[in-house]
Amino acid sequence: MKLTWKQYDLHLKHTFRISRSASDVAKVIIVQFEHNGIIGYGEASPTKRYGESVETIPQFLQKIDFSRFDSPLQLEDILNYADAIEQGNTSAKCAVDLALHDWMGKKLNIPLYQLWGLNPAKSAKSSFTIAIDSKEVVEQKVREAEEFPILKVKVGADNDEEMINTIRKITDKVLYVDANEGWKDKHLALERIKWLKDQNVEFVEQPMPSAQLDDIKWLRDKSDLPLIADESVLRLQEIPKLAGAFDGINIKLMKCTGLREAMRMINTARALNMKIMMGCMIETAVGISAGAHLGPLLDYADLDGNVLISDDPFDGVRNIKGELKLNNNPGLGVSLKD
Amino acid sequence: MKLTWKQYDLHLKHTFRISRSASDVAKVIIVQFEHNGIIGYGEASPTKRYGESVETIPQFLQKIDFSRFDSPLQLEDILNYADAIEQGNTSAKCAVDLALHDWMGKKLNIPLYQLWGLNPAKSAKSSFTIAIDSKEVVEQKVREAEEFPILKVKVGADNDEEMINTIRKITDKVLYVDANEGWKDKHLALERIKWLKDQNVEFVEQPMPSAQLDDIKWLRDKSDLPLIADESVLRLQEIPKLAGAFDGINIKLMKCTGLREAMRMINTARALNMKIMMGCMIETAVGISAGAHLGPLLDYADLDGNVLISDDPFDGVRNIKGELKLNNNPGLGVSLKD
Repeated sequence: MKLTWKQYDLHLKHTFRISRSASDVAKVIIVQFEHNGIIGYGEASPTKRYGESVETIPQFLQKIDFSRFDSPLQLEDILNYADAIEQGNTSAKCAVDLALHDWMGKKLNIPLYQLWGLNPAKSAKSSFTIAIDSKEVVEQKVREAEEFPILKVKVGADNDEEMINTIRKITDKVLYVDANEGWKDKHLALERIKWLKDQNVEFVEQPMPSAQLDDIKWLRDKSDLPLIADESVLRLQEIPKLAGAFDGINIKLMKCTGLREAMRMINTARALNMKIMMGCMIETAVGISAGAHLGPLLDYADLDGNVLISDDPFDGVRNIKGELKLNNNPGLGVSLKD
Repeated sequence: MKLTWKQYDLHLKHTFRISRSASDVAKVIIVQFEHNGIIGYGEASPTKRYGESVETIPQFLQKIDFSRFDSPLQLEDILNYADAIEQGNTSAKCAVDLALHDWMGKKLNIPLYQLWGLNPAKSAKSSFTIAIDSKEVVEQKVREAEEFPILKVKVGADNDEEMINTIRKITDKVLYVDANEGWKDKHLALERIKWLKDQNVEFVEQPMPSAQLDDIKWLRDKSDLPLIADESVLRLQEIPKLAGAFDGINIKLMKCTGLREAMRMINTARALNMKIMMGCMIETAVGISAGAHLGPLLDYADLDGNVLISDDPFDGVRNIKGELKLNNNPGLGVSLKD
């Protein structure tokens, strides 16, 4: 069993601005897991907030000793072992999880959705993200996104109303709103949510900072819109304590260590009657396809990470008017472009 | 896709007595799911308490219309559909779940544990159950069970101390205790638990009736031994509300509708930091093997249902001194004896 990796610089079609930061290039690591002539692909898209970068990922990956295991099919043991090597490093761990799942699917000659007994025709549709920007740029982006039936709008800066008004002047399509912890005061947040409800918004993601969980509980009791946890939830263990504060969770493979943990989180959220959303970072078709294989288990999908880039090195799931179209190829169903 | 079924009468080596009832014969239904020349086996072992019998199971099974589905691999859709046909009928639903999993494993030519990425060498050991009986019979049974390293002792009748004293005179091996809701008063229950702790018991299963959840919470705060829910837990949705009252859950395939729901329950219990036990009814090697494939995810296994019968019609997992030895055959790894 051999793991190798390579860095890719992904170029964004538009500068991507959320309430905390802005960027033009996303650096990711693509891993290749090879055993018995089969190659499994995985991806790590690191986030500074969680202490990762394209420098820390290889440092973590080289600590993994696959020689301890008899077979790549022992996912439970391998991934538990990798998880215990060091805290954090969630996107690096995700890369390994994805590569092992891809390998397994190829070994069994079956797409991952089928390995999990899922019907891809029942996948949630993906939203398309409109980042925070000037009125003119937002107008242009909304027009460019005409084919997508659901928009996810980033708010939480000082132009929330302008963002929504600009979009609503152009279209009445479904809107998800993501505040990315941008509202610091619960009364202000409640006012914004009331106003958003009138603009026909479906839900609000992470209205306030994750550290203000009591404020979010207060807000949820009064909110007319469902609240979905994003920054508040990384992994499985955090979900139960969120059940009173949020109506759902946004699972990101890069934050939760991959598909195996994501499945655990989905099952747990379901037990708690919470809605299940899957989001992404800026990722290639490798990471996005992985998320899409879980599409039939999602209430909401926000898997547009590779639609936002101009130079995806991989083919995989296709986003056709928001529909996530998986192919029938085994594993993740991804392949390096020529 | 074709489902057929047949009743088997399983004969117990000893009359099986718990706090509520006694029996010599267990009637089960074995199902065969056939598609493309592959046969998947499943089993339903009904419980009167939950409104099932060998009469209700065929009534339920004949309502399932497989022609709605393209492929047996669409487990999520098929099992959600079957679940929605009618409430209850959990062992009948379990039979279908097991048969589809067995079919899938055979189709992919892989044992179920491997399909789930598990290492069977890491399985929990199974306990062997000693039912409530006279001192003389208990003595005899404990001696017959010499090869098994863990005994699960049924208490909750009026001879608890006699049961334990009789066993402890013969052996100091690990004891699990199952009260099967037999203690109705919380103060009495606490006294019994304190005494059991001194007899070196590992945990107590369902000390009090499931309807007395507040009493069980009171008991747990004061108990020196972990409390495991059995009658209190049927399916996924019940787990979160048990988190403050019990330290773990006992999952039974026949009560939870099968392997797919069991996996969801395991993931949820883990998120809630609860221990995971798997129990069984009187079952053939079909049902017991199914549970054993989840063995590596369990803290405690009580999968002796087919060791207690004299005429198991199936070969499958072997219980060697409490170790659950799965073979490498695909699916459940079970076969009808000649």
